[in-house]
Amino acid sequence: MNKSMYRGRIPSPDLVAGNGLINRRALLGQGIAVAGALAAVGSKTAAAAEPLQDEAWSKAFGAVTPALQTPSPFEKAVTRTLSNPDGEFRTSHARTPHQLLGGTVTPNSLHFSINHCGIPNIDPAKHKLVIHGMVRQPLEFTLETLSRYPLVTRMHFVECAGNSAPMFSSEPVQATAQQLHGLASNAEWSGVPLSILLDEAGIDPKAKWLIAEGADAQQLDRSIPVKKAYDDAIIAIYQNGERLMPGNGYPMRLLVPGYQGNMNVKFLHRLKAVDQPAMTYFETKNYSQVLPGGKTWRFHFLMEVKSLVTFPSFGRSLDGPGYYTISGIAWSGDGRIAKVMVSADGGKSWGEAALQGPVHDKAFTRFQMPWRWDGQPAILQSRAWDEAGNVQPLRAEFVAARGQTRKPVTTPLAFPNQHYNSLTSWGIGSKGEISHVYA
Amino acid sequence: MNKSMYRGRIPSPDLVAGNGLINRRALLGQGIAVAGALAAVGSKTAAAAEPLQDEAWSKAFGAVTPALQTPSPFEKAVTRTLSNPDGEFRTSHARTPHQLLGGTVTPNSLHFSINHCGIPNIDPAKHKLVIHGMVRQPLEFTLETLSRYPLVTRMHFVECAGNSAPMFSSEPVQATAQQLHGLASNAEWSGVPLSILLDEAGIDPKAKWLIAEGADAQQLDRSIPVKKAYDDAIIAIYQNGERLMPGNGYPMRLLVPGYQGNMNVKFLHRLKAVDQPAMTYFETKNYSQVLPGGKTWRFHFLMEVKSLVTFPSFGRSLDGPGYYTISGIAWSGDGRIAKVMVSADGGKSWGEAALQGPVHDKAFTRFQMPWRWDGQPAILQSRAWDEAGNVQPLRAEFVAARGQTRKPVTTPLAFPNQHYNSLTSWGIGSKGEISHVYA
Repeated sequence: MNKSMYRGRIPSPDLVAGNGLINRRALLGQGIAVAGALAAVGSKTAAAAEPLQDEAWSKAFGAVTPALQTPSPFEKAVTRTLSNPDGEFRTSHARTPHQLLGGTVTPNSLHFSINHCGIPNIDPAKHKLVIHGMVRQPLEFTLETLSRYPLVTRMHFVECAGNSAPMFSSEPVQATAQQLHGLASNAEWSGVPLSILLDEAGIDPKAKWLIAEGADAQQLDRSIPVKKAYDDAIIAIYQNGERLMPGNGYPMRLLVPGYQGNMNVKFLHRLKAVDQPAMTYFETKNYSQVLPGGKTWRFHFLMEVKSLVTFPSFGRSLDGPGYYTISGIAWSGDGRIAKVMVSADGGKSWGEAALQGPVHDKAFTRFQMPWRWDGQPAILQSRAWDEAGNVQPLRAEFVAARGQTRKPVTTPLAFPNQHYNSLTSWGIGSKGEISHVYA
Repeated sequence: MNKSMYRGRIPSPDLVAGNGLINRRALLGQGIAVAGALAAVGSKTAAAAEPLQDEAWSKAFGAVTPALQTPSPFEKAVTRTLSNPDGEFRTSHARTPHQLLGGTVTPNSLHFSINHCGIPNIDPAKHKLVIHGMVRQPLEFTLETLSRYPLVTRMHFVECAGNSAPMFSSEPVQATAQQLHGLASNAEWSGVPLSILLDEAGIDPKAKWLIAEGADAQQLDRSIPVKKAYDDAIIAIYQNGERLMPGNGYPMRLLVPGYQGNMNVKFLHRLKAVDQPAMTYFETKNYSQVLPGGKTWRFHFLMEVKSLVTFPSFGRSLDGPGYYTISGIAWSGDGRIAKVMVSADGGKSWGEAALQGPVHDKAFTRFQMPWRWDGQPAILQSRAWDEAGNVQPLRAEFVAARGQTRKPVTTPLAFPNQHYNSLTSWGIGSKGEISHVYA
């Protein structure tokens, strides 16, 4: 490839912000305007008659078609990173490699997973879900009986409340989007609306909470507002078309879209209708974030509006000046993404990104911004708005409200480490190298 | 579970067609109406205080969280079926298990794949795509340069023109939805609009066709109308968020939504702009379907509107009378699905199914129909309409127009074996057993 084609042939595009951001309308049009903005990406071949090389794979019969297909051996780097690869007696985290993915769906193999007591191997013929407590008639369901109900199918993200915890460090941690933000993923979930099951059980109007409990060894439990159960909660039994992954709650999980990942109780075993929250470990000790004044959040469930640039990003350097498409993901627990703005000069100026539709409620939305990099240092950022009017806070605002830590500490509960939703900034050096910066 | 709960407790729902089909509005409402229609699915527990059993998986630390997660060992049956498991020197087919899936996305592991010369193991750093022929400037692309372009992300099905070939048999073949219709799948594809690349190359207005050629050992080639390339064709580089599966064209494939699967050339190596079609093997000998009068179809590309019930279906018997949700998939190469009608009495009467939204262009759409089975023999069918006004033909109409074979022959080219889009009928016996029937 003739790399010189990356330089010097770029016409004057419609710039909308500093450091080379191009009007997103260049992505929406057809024909010459788009081609003009983008020319110099494809490498011109020496001549029409240049012979095509036949590589080894064009000359021999290929591999056997397998029953279950898996990615190319050349994609080995596209994998989850593990916090506990040997399965020691503690929590395991597996993070999604956002910087290596495109589109909006997280493939099931790469969906993030957190397990506090390992992953149970549940026989779906023996697993039961019981709805009891303040109901007219307690009911018991198996995977087979749940499968008889009408299912709803929806794209939704799930995000751990502790996702992005390294962003609380007072110094930017040099790490990939996966290490910083990999505890969030997005899938097509199919399941039974919880409202149908609660109506069938005849829930008492005085019941305001459901204690949801999993069948793993920890029997993880959380209190769920009955209002949320009726709004949009489902008992999910399919994930991207197939049964749930074991690490995502097989054979059934609670899905409370937009709420803390931990509340989407996996291996769901029972729902008890009660008039008071249970004050469980995860809602009192673990997920009661300590605020700078010393108070703590109580029942702070909603995952706030958020976005990040996934390309370019740390770990993927740029191959010289020229045209690139800045790409990233945005999501909000409070509804649909309404707008994403992108900056290439560390927040001095902003241009509006193009959103890939359809934009789903409480789901990842892919955004893109055409960009002409001139080879000078740049700082890339994204900032999202949701349809409820929420906006990602700037870092200074966020730190003032929520605090930061003096070193990259992620676990002690006295430190702020949850619900980070401020900006992520990638510094581009003149050689195309990328670092994590604060701006 | 108390199976008697399945019987006798069903109130009178709003029936819309024979043999127990219930108005789909029952799925759209909230509260008591839905619960009323569905009561008797959940099994009533003996008492609120009934103790919950703790199974083995609730008592011990579970399995290690892996880097790439895979389905539960209890889901081993959810796999593709193979026509050539040993990789002999002939075509391989791997079929999607529709009868075991939900939602609309086909997980990448289960996406159908047909390979005529095995699956090439392509190094993406060496693979090139060349656009040449009747263009102002021939261009060459790598996966890296394609990744710099703005991508579009869309849900689309791909279907082999020979999908459903066993349905041409004059006697119904007793086989699953997978064996009958498993050469169609649905995914979120991300890629570069082909129009951008053709504009950049400066295609000659006299060029009416593109010869698309793959880098596999067969160098499979097809002629693609330039008009289709500008309508909605993309060079796909992501499938459900990750790089393409090797059996689906890694590192890049042509996607011509709604056209014969074979035209979506995998391992795309070159696109040559020409003024005449190339008359390749697959567009002359293989995919020129012979019609009853002896003529053949020439360049018949569009995959017609189609649907099938995936549950209940062959291989999944019913566990006694009671409430079930009939569920299936519908798609059309000519646009969005507009309507699906369902019959439980072999076509004597029909009720309109509920469609799961958003309904995407040229993509699988999940439909559902609430159903009260009274234990008597029934015949389930679905029939789809698309937004262009096309409708699935009834079997008698279809056979009159297209012919049938006297035995289940699927390959000889003199027999009709392509573009089947008539109905699929599942016969339910009084014991809940399911057979494939014609009705």
